[in-house]
Amino acid sequence: MEHGGDLSVAMERFGGEPGDWLDLSTGINPYSYPLPASLPLSTWTALPAKSALERLVAAARQTYRVPDQLGLVAAPGTQILLSLLPNLLPDGPVAIASPTYSSHKKVWAREGREPVELSSIYALPADARIVLLVNPNNPDGQLVDVKSLLEIARTLTERGGYLVLDEAFADVVPGASILPHLGGENVLVLRSFGKFFGLAGLRLGFLAGPKEATSRLSGVLESWCLSGPALEIGTAALKDSSWQEAMTRQLVDEMADLTLTLSQHGLSVFGGTPLYALAGLRNAKGLHEALARRRIWTRVFDYAPTWMRLGLPGGADKLERLSEALADAQKEL
Amino acid sequence: MEHGGDLSVAMERFGGEPGDWLDLSTGINPYSYPLPASLPLSTWTALPAKSALERLVAAARQTYRVPDQLGLVAAPGTQILLSLLPNLLPDGPVAIASPTYSSHKKVWAREGREPVELSSIYALPADARIVLLVNPNNPDGQLVDVKSLLEIARTLTERGGYLVLDEAFADVVPGASILPHLGGENVLVLRSFGKFFGLAGLRLGFLAGPKEATSRLSGVLESWCLSGPALEIGTAALKDSSWQEAMTRQLVDEMADLTLTLSQHGLSVFGGTPLYALAGLRNAKGLHEALARRRIWTRVFDYAPTWMRLGLPGGADKLERLSEALADAQKEL
Repeated sequence: MEHGGDLSVAMERFGGEPGDWLDLSTGINPYSYPLPASLPLSTWTALPAKSALERLVAAARQTYRVPDQLGLVAAPGTQILLSLLPNLLPDGPVAIASPTYSSHKKVWAREGREPVELSSIYALPADARIVLLVNPNNPDGQLVDVKSLLEIARTLTERGGYLVLDEAFADVVPGASILPHLGGENVLVLRSFGKFFGLAGLRLGFLAGPKEATSRLSGVLESWCLSGPALEIGTAALKDSSWQEAMTRQLVDEMADLTLTLSQHGLSVFGGTPLYALAGLRNAKGLHEALARRRIWTRVFDYAPTWMRLGLPGGADKLERLSEALADAQKEL
Repeated sequence: MEHGGDLSVAMERFGGEPGDWLDLSTGINPYSYPLPASLPLSTWTALPAKSALERLVAAARQTYRVPDQLGLVAAPGTQILLSLLPNLLPDGPVAIASPTYSSHKKVWAREGREPVELSSIYALPADARIVLLVNPNNPDGQLVDVKSLLEIARTLTERGGYLVLDEAFADVVPGASILPHLGGENVLVLRSFGKFFGLAGLRLGFLAGPKEATSRLSGVLESWCLSGPALEIGTAALKDSSWQEAMTRQLVDEMADLTLTLSQHGLSVFGGTPLYALAGLRNAKGLHEALARRRIWTRVFDYAPTWMRLGLPGGADKLERLSEALADAQKEL
């Protein structure tokens, strides 16, 4: 499976070394949570203790405001969680709010359950049993309000179905998460650790939902599949609410700067979150390649030839580099 | 799920801090593969690249001598792989060579497919379709020869079944692995990275087998569920054949010393591998607790009240500590 941030793909096509590239192709926070100067050796050598996993899950429960009556499981990234969902959830038609992060559709299609694509979640098909929604959405940042989601969730619950919400980018959009509002509805919520905390290489993600659903997953996943470093660093980061608050403000500020820069170069931002901007332009693929020749890697979409998604450069110098590359690249188009 | 090495369980019952304990309850090599002085920051921050996973799997293929025609998938530890097997393999009766590592039985029982326990793999039930064997076995080190395994594998293949071999400790027993001898038989082989390389906290394991079986797993697992550090350190360690050879010799020597010390204190070693000794004694549970009061954690077994499994202490000082504790503890019994 490919992902935006795979610079090895960029280097294969356009050359250069990892250090040459400014990678804007992901929504990963460029300001990673500070790593400890060193980790105890036992973090690497010993099998992770059950108590370490419990501490991590408790920290996640508090940060993500997961109600006590819901189950919460940790995994090495949300990707494996969403891959396991077709085996976990009931049979029946699957619908997905589109366009969105492509993996959701792929994992269901692989199991022979090709999802119906919905242009709007509000137009819920009468037979849909499983509904998938990325909220806020990737790449356009579209946000569905919690009240509407709860209503959809109740409809699906009555049908014996499930609403699956991927809240991969909800950390940076206050009020976006449904988690604090959940009661007994059949809703599964995916939370990504690596994006907001800028530590995607750590591999850490969570799924919250009714205990009868999460307990089946924990049989597979609470089998020490989280690394010692993920347990240690994840717990510290999730507990650090002052870093989280300051970082959210900083990301909002920097996204404003990026939006302004893009608009100065004729790219109008029409969607996104504080971790990525979605811009419209006539020839996104042409600009994508012209920027790639300047070792700046952005994200374009086969299904939308006028869209370009850009993550935060991570500082004034890098924003300036992007600005100059945009001016220069556009002369070629 | 509990495991031998969970010192938090020991501390709950007997007190003390992690640094006080000598943990002999696992078969994890106490001499861990040397960690790099530092890892590139991108190992932590970036989503792992597909190319990094490919390098890791290529290194594992060479070290474990996996024939080209077999598939090989990497996972965050073998535990998640064995947990996923009931969903991967065909229906039909399951048999397991017993007693052995308890997780295998548990994951099948959880799916409603309680395995039949075999005292000998040679007495294959006529209806068995899936056969599970830990080879060399944990805790007794029993080894089934490759020729017999291939014969069993062919019988099961003709039935449309599978032989599942957990080679968690095969690294330290030259000639034990079936991998170099496999052709088209329906055999799945689990390989653990963390035990021999002493890096159980890294979470890394592999499964080799026919491509039609492994490709279903890779859909779930090649979804970046390995951490950046696991990819980086795992690849380096698997390629380091001189460390592997020297370490195997060292472990054999130290196990000889441990065996001698145990026998001097009346514990006769009757099984094991260079990573753990299985000793017989009258009151294993009593000695286990007396050692625990001296902050030495060993492994005992509900099903065999005379068995005690001990891992390598990791050096002459620690062996001496064990020796003194054994002398002292036995006065209490």
